[in-house]
Amino acid sequence: MCVVGLGLIGGSLMRAAAGAGREVFGYNRSVEAVAAAKFDGFDATENLDEALRRAADLNALIVLAVPMPALPQMLDHVRQTAPQCPLTDVTSVKGAVLDEVRRADLLPNFVGGHPMAGTAHSGWSAGDAALFTGAAWVVSVDDHVDAQVWSLVTQLALDCHAVVVPARSDEHDAAAAAISHLPHLFAEALAVTAGEVPLAFALAAGSFRDGTRVAATAPDLVRAMCEANADQLLPALEQSIELLTRAKKALADTGSVADLVETGHAARMRYDSFSRPEIMTTVVGTDNWRAELAAAGRAGGVIRSALPVLGNPG
Amino acid sequence: MCVVGLGLIGGSLMRAAAGAGREVFGYNRSVEAVAAAKFDGFDATENLDEALRRAADLNALIVLAVPMPALPQMLDHVRQTAPQCPLTDVTSVKGAVLDEVRRADLLPNFVGGHPMAGTAHSGWSAGDAALFTGAAWVVSVDDHVDAQVWSLVTQLALDCHAVVVPARSDEHDAAAAAISHLPHLFAEALAVTAGEVPLAFALAAGSFRDGTRVAATAPDLVRAMCEANADQLLPALEQSIELLTRAKKALADTGSVADLVETGHAARMRYDSFSRPEIMTTVVGTDNWRAELAAAGRAGGVIRSALPVLGNPG
Repeated sequence: MCVVGLGLIGGSLMRAAAGAGREVFGYNRSVEAVAAAKFDGFDATENLDEALRRAADLNALIVLAVPMPALPQMLDHVRQTAPQCPLTDVTSVKGAVLDEVRRADLLPNFVGGHPMAGTAHSGWSAGDAALFTGAAWVVSVDDHVDAQVWSLVTQLALDCHAVVVPARSDEHDAAAAAISHLPHLFAEALAVTAGEVPLAFALAAGSFRDGTRVAATAPDLVRAMCEANADQLLPALEQSIELLTRAKKALADTGSVADLVETGHAARMRYDSFSRPEIMTTVVGTDNWRAELAAAGRAGGVIRSALPVLGNPG
Repeated sequence: MCVVGLGLIGGSLMRAAAGAGREVFGYNRSVEAVAAAKFDGFDATENLDEALRRAADLNALIVLAVPMPALPQMLDHVRQTAPQCPLTDVTSVKGAVLDEVRRADLLPNFVGGHPMAGTAHSGWSAGDAALFTGAAWVVSVDDHVDAQVWSLVTQLALDCHAVVVPARSDEHDAAAAAISHLPHLFAEALAVTAGEVPLAFALAAGSFRDGTRVAATAPDLVRAMCEANADQLLPALEQSIELLTRAKKALADTGSVADLVETGHAARMRYDSFSRPEIMTTVVGTDNWRAELAAAGRAGGVIRSALPVLGNPG
């Protein structure tokens, strides 16, 4: 397999895949990162064409692990040099990636992915073979997805000791808006509001620290993920503003915040008791397999070992 | 000293004060709680008049550790039986308590307090002598506050190994709205919003867990604190809705959330670097001592050992 981009995620992926016994080589544009990867015993180059030609010769799985803004250009290179290779990515927004892949005419061999893992650090040196252990790794089951490529990508995630959540790209993005991008904006708004109250920081404790923790994330990263997912973030933002506005009106008019507090508590209790059943019975490639996996993922299902694939030896 | 109410806070206070070598007795309306306290070796009674008569005889400091709804009735009992005793409380909202104390005509000997500590549990059995260790304990410096009573209350907090933050009741309540009550409502709104997105709980990780942690708090407790502080919570809620609404508009119109993200990050960074200098030079009872302490508290100052009091032996 060929990892394009050896930052935190790509570098961790290279280490984890090698640790699982896979043959892996990679590209990074930075001479320093490539030198560091080589020094650590990995097969890396700063020559993109060389890496992609090698991938094409081996029909290797190509993993795009570059930031979203660099993706269109990378896809053009893949299109020119290795258009037949199975292709995946590890980007946190899936709909926008799908659009770019379609534009580059690479859809048939592409299955989007998103390992839900990260740290506050970046670059090759921050990488860790154990980064994905136990993490959820979304593997897309969009309508175009090929069963064989899907199985290759799922196997990579399992080799990295992740659990696989099958999901449609649009549903992934709507969920990411609600559970990640909106919480980031809420944290920013809490920090700003408290920052203008004289005594607030002097008294701030648990609920403020928890509620604003992700406001410490670098602004560029927060902007990049929120802005790339604007289509899904806007309705989530709209709804949460509506909830808060209704609570404000109820508090002003009747002195009660019962509605918001009780529905919020009930939702959090549902989350706490959300179970993660293992998905075991779907045969990849049979009629309706993508919709079946999307429904199982929505219900909390995860894949912990490879599913059978129609036509493959069992 | 006399602790009225032996739940989580009152019970912890009784243990901590006894641990510091203070003579302490207490009242609870529940026979079971009193029996449990006695079994643990403490001096407790379910006879309120007996406890308050004893406090009056000893001119003991009375600490009201009952929930807000029970406070007016308790204040009436104190007024009848022990009106001359120094008086404090441990309630999380200070303006509403001040109003009740004024109504009961007990203002001259009253200094409000609020230890910023708690757990998810309640009742005598949940109490812990170490609950206040290192916690901020607000002791009010409102205009009416008497220097001698203030020193008694501050000494109690220090004996419980808390650090004292001097603050005006209105400023305490505005800060509590911003750093506690608003974060609770935000957590509820996040939980509700995510709860309606099919795949959200399946993918929820760190930022969602942090952002909704306090939505697991019992709804009655959240309602009680938010609703008792409606006057201060409403403007904080208004401002944060305005911030989110502006961010939504910017995202829809220009595709950018830069303003909110950058000001939020800057505010969180200011909080992370907020220093806690020790307040050491104020002499309690001199001209302007209350305003001086309020300003020092606002600037992050904390009291770690007793301040000198005008006229007392040094």
